[in-house]
Amino acid sequence: MSGQRNIDLNADLGEGFGAWRMGDDAALLAIVTSANVACGFHAGDPDIMVETAMAAKARGVAVGAHPGFFDLRGFGRTPIRETPRRIERDVAYQIGALQACAALAGTRVTYVKAHGALANLANAEDAIAEAIARAVAGVDRGLALVVMPGLPAERAAARAGLRGIREIYADRAYADDGRLAPRAMDGAVLHDAHDIAARVRRMVEDGAVTTLSGRRIPVGIDTVCVHGDHPGAIAAARVVRAELEGAGLALRPFAPP
Amino acid sequence: MSGQRNIDLNADLGEGFGAWRMGDDAALLAIVTSANVACGFHAGDPDIMVETAMAAKARGVAVGAHPGFFDLRGFGRTPIRETPRRIERDVAYQIGALQACAALAGTRVTYVKAHGALANLANAEDAIAEAIARAVAGVDRGLALVVMPGLPAERAAARAGLRGIREIYADRAYADDGRLAPRAMDGAVLHDAHDIAARVRRMVEDGAVTTLSGRRIPVGIDTVCVHGDHPGAIAAARVVRAELEGAGLALRPFAPP
Amino acid sequence: MSGQRNIDLNADLGEGFGAWRMGDDAALLAIVTSANVACGFHAGDPDIMVETAMAAKARGVAVGAHPGFFDLRGFGRTPIRETPRRIERDVAYQIGALQACAALAGTRVTYVKAHGALANLANAEDAIAEAIARAVAGVDRGLALVVMPGLPAERAAARAGLRGIREIYADRAYADDGRLAPRAMDGAVLHDAHDIAARVRRMVEDGAVTTLSGRRIPVGIDTVCVHGDHPGAIAAARVVRAELEGAGLALRPFAPP
Amino acid sequence: MSGQRNIDLNADLGEGFGAWRMGDDAALLAIVTSANVACGFHAGDPDIMVETAMAAKARGVAVGAHPGFFDLRGFGRTPIRETPRRIERDVAYQIGALQACAALAGTRVTYVKAHGALANLANAEDAIAEAIARAVAGVDRGLALVVMPGLPAERAAARAGLRGIREIYADRAYADDGRLAPRAMDGAVLHDAHDIAARVRRMVEDGAVTTLSGRRIPVGIDTVCVHGDHPGAIAAARVVRAELEGAGLALRPFAPP
Repeated sequence: MSGQRNIDLNADLGEGFGAWRMGDDAALLAIVTSANVACGFHAGDPDIMVETAMAAKARGVAVGAHPGFFDLRGFGRTPIRETPRRIERDVAYQIGALQACAALAGTRVTYVKAHGALANLANAEDAIAEAIARAVAGVDRGLALVVMPGLPAERAAARAGLRGIREIYADRAYADDGRLAPRAMDGAVLHDAHDIAARVRRMVEDGAVTTLSGRRIPVGIDTVCVHGDHPGAIAAARVVRAELEGAGLALRPFAPP
Repeated sequence: MSGQRNIDLNADLGEGFGAWRMGDDAALLAIVTSANVACGFHAGDPDIMVETAMAAKARGVAVGAHPGFFDLRGFGRTPIRETPRRIERDVAYQIGALQACAALAGTRVTYVKAHGALANLANAEDAIAEAIARAVAGVDRGLALVVMPGLPAERAAARAGLRGIREIYADRAYADDGRLAPRAMDGAVLHDAHDIAARVRRMVEDGAVTTLSGRRIPVGIDTVCVHGDHPGAIAAARVVRAELEGAGLALRPFAPP
Repeated sequence: MSGQRNIDLNADLGEGFGAWRMGDDAALLAIVTSANVACGFHAGDPDIMVETAMAAKARGVAVGAHPGFFDLRGFGRTPIRETPRRIERDVAYQIGALQACAALAGTRVTYVKAHGALANLANAEDAIAEAIARAVAGVDRGLALVVMPGLPAERAAARAGLRGIREIYADRAYADDGRLAPRAMDGAVLHDAHDIAARVRRMVEDGAVTTLSGRRIPVGIDTVCVHGDHPGAIAAARVVRAELEGAGLALRPFAPP
Repeated sequence: MSGQRNIDLNADLGEGFGAWRMGDDAALLAIVTSANVACGFHAGDPDIMVETAMAAKARGVAVGAHPGFFDLRGFGRTPIRETPRRIERDVAYQIGALQACAALAGTRVTYVKAHGALANLANAEDAIAEAIARAVAGVDRGLALVVMPGLPAERAAARAGLRGIREIYADRAYADDGRLAPRAMDGAVLHDAHDIAARVRRMVEDGAVTTLSGRRIPVGIDTVCVHGDHPGAIAAARVVRAELEGAGLALRPFAPP
């Protein structure tokens, strides 16, 4: 890294529904700079969405829409075959819904990041990636779109005239094609907080993803995804943040509210 | 009526869900000037919402959000006790969702009208009427809010700084307090198309609601609600439109797209 | 056909949800001998299920469970990847739910037939067909299971010790592997009522499926599936029934209530 | 208490949905003798229902159906006005669904206990209590029905020919009419584990409910409801069990599997 002075940390928040909660949002909001807020299709409801936006605003954390499949029971992780047209409309609906909830909370949505099985499809198929990008651009061209560098979503964002935010995952290893290594593969998921933090720092400073085989893929890195769904993940996220700050990087939302 | 030259006809549209449809939207869109579009909580899904907005746009019909309770099975007609805070957020969510769908369709939402059991509550309780008005104002102060003249919703719209659109029902009789006469009451529901049309014309020209007992309540009338859920209703709506046009009134959306 | 004297006609019924309806159940109940009743996952709710069971009972029509994916918006037609274990449990749940509703209606469930995308999967993959058969056997070994002859579901029924009911589709052409010809293929869907009826009669009398290419696949035929989702389909179903009766076949439920 | 040697402890289990969980079911299953299992309307899904039934069976714990309103977002706590007829059918549906899931798990449903807002209505209105009792009797007259002694549900169970199981709440105070004191009232909710346990023991040994004002209402007590939704509740449940065992009572399901 030569000139990079800022980096963003993002995490999924507001993933409850009705009486159910998931993850420790309060802890995460003290760590991240961007909050991917579920929009009611795979998690989230208007109450939770407004509360999450309020909490993010209070912390200066950016609010992003985190649309997923209409799949509450499967938490948006069920592989579903939907047409691109339906996906475009589902994504637009969810963005608009969160925009209104953010308005009630006195803040605004500045970016979009696809969730779960929908994100997986967008990384695999141009038609899906383009449907998502069309939805975002159709609602508001000023919204940024989080993408995995080198994959269909990045190209789709560019074609739609959207600002693409290149993301790496803090605790997931990469295959040589720039995709996440399948979870079943040895070493695909990193567990040690200090290993995770050191690797994130290296990749951000180097401006490149390092794959499991040691290959270096030079990409710009705008944001690092951390998790909060179990206590160890939150601890690791905290170490990642400390490591990046220790390296002199400023933690800042890529798309401030 | 002295100077009134315009009137609006509104109806509920897009009331299907998934593979189900309800009402003859194509027929209604040739009659009304404002379309109350269901937003996914009691009916409607993103596909239907975008398609309905596209069809409305093609006809020059205004698109309004028609939020209801989160009650797909009960079509938003189940009496539910929700807190005003939750209602405020539910309504905002639905408005935002339709705004995004309308954007995909190349048009925009210009007004809001509450549906079913939620509308009934808003006509009965100030706290609910105010929650709805806060939701509308919180999302966009430029949105108009359809109200029953003289009831809590009209006061709430005024207090929230919103343009209140005063509505009468074409085929429902009124009690002396300005509320709809209960359906069980004799004469509460009008069935003859020509009676309906003549009464609507009288009320619009007179600028006053006439109650079952013959009492005259002077109110401005901005829009007339017609129905499309059975063939007779559509036929009646057509006669209402012809009657109003025959009286020299111009049919125009109260809040054009 | 040598000794065959009975045949069954089945159709999907009770496919509404809440305020929505689909198909003309009353007309169908005058034609078919077995009613595949939706169980609440892709269509149907307890009200509709009890009402449909009551109407079937009044007509002497057998009641079968028609389980589908948990996919109300997609009407159970969305291709979803679920694990066999989850499918087993989803199917059991739906059967039990209908059994209770049938009990309220004073009748009982005598068979099971999978719906939509779930049925398609069961015809393509042994693991899914076996999950369904395990669910049926786990709930009640006396329940029959409708299968497409020669496909995974038939083998799975046999392995689970269930009575397999071999079904043909009245208005769909067959490929040489015994599967339905894809709808997109020329001639895959039959439209003329008399062609449909004559072909059904030939196949039932012959005890064999005839494919698009003219190949003859000898199979026993226990039931013929007809449709009721549009007026033409009901008219065709009526002609099918008349044709079979004219040929001296007795129309009887394969699994009487 | 003269001859009473057995008592039952019941608690709500399986209250997750999809990826969400609620309460510590494993801890509760080591304490209670009867498990009220959510049936999919306010919580629970077929996966969770089968898993919960399997865990209960492994512990010798009885499985009861815990039907609620069709209200996933409100966890069955939203006050909803449904007709008795719809409630009857909804309850039957849920019982049947759990019966099938229990069959997959190798056990069976032996009783029914209404949940949340539905239970509140059943304690207040005869028509609702009777709808529930009719549902239970319509599905299986051998099922027991948990009731609050002296309230509509007890009478309805008797009229329907069902075995009524009289229940007290471990941590809730009683008003003089035998109903639970409203939560807002001072002293309505007990918090100290030893106070709770001592009061339960007294009431069970005495065969009478003691009200906030000190009134003694002699009723048989068949089961004691404990909670598991927070760590303190589980700790209290454990103390209640120890106290009852210390008093020489045998902890046994009132309706063994």
